Amino acid sequence: MKKRILTGDRPTGKLHIGHYFGSLRNRVKYQKEYDTFIIIADVQALTDNFKTPRKVRENVKEVAIDNLAVGIDPQRSTIFIQSLIPEIAELTIFYSNLVTIARLERNPTVKDEFKQKKEVFQDKITYGFLGYPVSQAADITVFDADLVPVGDDQLPQVEQTQEIVGKFNRIYGKVLVKPEAAIDEFPRVRGLDGRSKMSKSLDNAIYLGDEAEEIQAKVAKALTDKNKIKIDDKGNPDDCTVFYYHQIFEAENLAQIRKQCQTGVRGCVNCKKELANNIIQRLAPIREKRKYYEKNPKVVEDILRNGTQRAKKVAQETLARVKKSMFLDYFK
Amino acid sequence: MKKRILTGDRPTGKLHIGHYFGSLRNRVKYQKEYDTFIIIADVQALTDNFKTPRKVRENVKEVAIDNLAVGIDPQRSTIFIQSLIPEIAELTIFYSNLVTIARLERNPTVKDEFKQKKEVFQDKITYGFLGYPVSQAADITVFDADLVPVGDDQLPQVEQTQEIVGKFNRIYGKVLVKPEAAIDEFPRVRGLDGRSKMSKSLDNAIYLGDEAEEIQAKVAKALTDKNKIKIDDKGNPDDCTVFYYHQIFEAENLAQIRKQCQTGVRGCVNCKKELANNIIQRLAPIREKRKYYEKNPKVVEDILRNGTQRAKKVAQETLARVKKSMFLDYFK
Repeated sequence: MKKRILTGDRPTGKLHIGHYFGSLRNRVKYQKEYDTFIIIADVQALTDNFKTPRKVRENVKEVAIDNLAVGIDPQRSTIFIQSLIPEIAELTIFYSNLVTIARLERNPTVKDEFKQKKEVFQDKITYGFLGYPVSQAADITVFDADLVPVGDDQLPQVEQTQEIVGKFNRIYGKVLVKPEAAIDEFPRVRGLDGRSKMSKSLDNAIYLGDEAEEIQAKVAKALTDKNKIKIDDKGNPDDCTVFYYHQIFEAENLAQIRKQCQTGVRGCVNCKKELANNIIQRLAPIREKRKYYEKNPKVVEDILRNGTQRAKKVAQETLARVKKSMFLDYFK
Repeated sequence: MKKRILTGDRPTGKLHIGHYFGSLRNRVKYQKEYDTFIIIADVQALTDNFKTPRKVRENVKEVAIDNLAVGIDPQRSTIFIQSLIPEIAELTIFYSNLVTIARLERNPTVKDEFKQKKEVFQDKITYGFLGYPVSQAADITVFDADLVPVGDDQLPQVEQTQEIVGKFNRIYGKVLVKPEAAIDEFPRVRGLDGRSKMSKSLDNAIYLGDEAEEIQAKVAKALTDKNKIKIDDKGNPDDCTVFYYHQIFEAENLAQIRKQCQTGVRGCVNCKKELANNIIQRLAPIREKRKYYEKNPKVVEDILRNGTQRAKKVAQETLARVKKSMFLDYFK
């Protein structure tokens, strides 16, 4: 039997090239080898978007389309909506007894994210947000996932899941599968403004669905290194965002670009045009597929409905096993 | 339409006369006037019994039988098992975003109960135990309960529910019913050892199913006031547990008992025999009904199955309303 993988997205905005290089691209590879489950985590998105549920709802469709557009094959992969699997909520409640508040408060990922979300929480963390690693443990284990691809910043979440699985299996018997983390090689893409992370909230992103003109305009405003490229120890020019993107998008003439820039032959305006054109070309097939799904919402809905149905079946089987182990199998 | 009431028990042990006078007796009256839902809260029981799930399971049946034995009529009241209503878990997760950790840590009931349960938690409160008021809010609101009968020590739980309802309705629209507390008049019965609360864990209880000999033996060991009865401001003899029980079980000759005791005519041994006989007689019909249900587990199972089915239907309707208000009504 194929090993199973759980991955997915929070539906809080359309996906951008940061998501593409960080996660989506790998996902497309994984689905060939693994039984891939892709969760659209609307319930988790609500933990820090509980005041804007309409935004979450709208982005469920967008995120589904983004996944399909980059090459997720619904015949190979199971795309589903988290809130339609109540078994995840049930498991979360059971796991809540196996995790202390002190342990959650030590979780570095929760700490970091809480700090970034002052405008939502106003210094007072909610019960739901502190506990989202417990809910993630339920997401992962309800599908018996063997592998969870994560950026290094998300590693503590997988560790928390492993702890919960260990504790559950010690108390109730060997019922749950302990997942392993697969660290993404390229977890973070810099923003157009040169900041360390491309992010919707920082308004420094190129979206998978961006039109040619949008990409040109965004790249034209990208941060360049006025003092020309500095080369770091590894031979990478560190300070020019445009050169950084030339690398990511695998410009064929990288060596030439570097030399032309350093010797002043290449101006930034042309350099950016070249980059924009390369990005436009690389994203073209994704953009086209995106448009197809946008025009055919029924197709997307059917994919989500079928995926959710399959996910539900797996979740029900796991929950039956879990409930039996906890003596909660009434009327059987 | 009848107003709805939610009440119930944690299945952690058979019920005793403390439960009877504190809650069950009222429940039997309530069912005539209210649409009564009785929750057997196995999921909540697991928050502090997660290492002993078998005990919880066994007591689900016992607690159901206790309710039926005291006169709960399954035609009037809906008795159901919490873990079979996943909608409660789903609501709990949604409500988790509306409550801060700081607020839960201030909850006096949680604080008190946590202190009493050092042997379970060893100074480290679990995520599940800290959050059980959130789960209780889900229990109450998923059935649109208008009224929740509670002891005064449980009042903060109803207040917490009211807060959650207020916040939910402000964000998502007027969807939830705000419940009111009905304070039980007689929330606490002293233990046989004279301690302020009858409790299984203190081993000072008379159970509804106790046989005549057990009652005689327990009453014989009850704490008496060797210095004879002291009368407090309200005319109640405060120090003699046996006299206290004479009052609760409404001895017809109370005035005589008091006088005989004070003048030394009545000895403690006879006084206890008289009390034991009265208790045995009062509990006889309950004990008989208990035996009937013990001998007919299928009858109990059918009552629980039907009750759970009815509860499930109500919960599904509420959850559909809740999900619609949160834009989580996919494929509709």
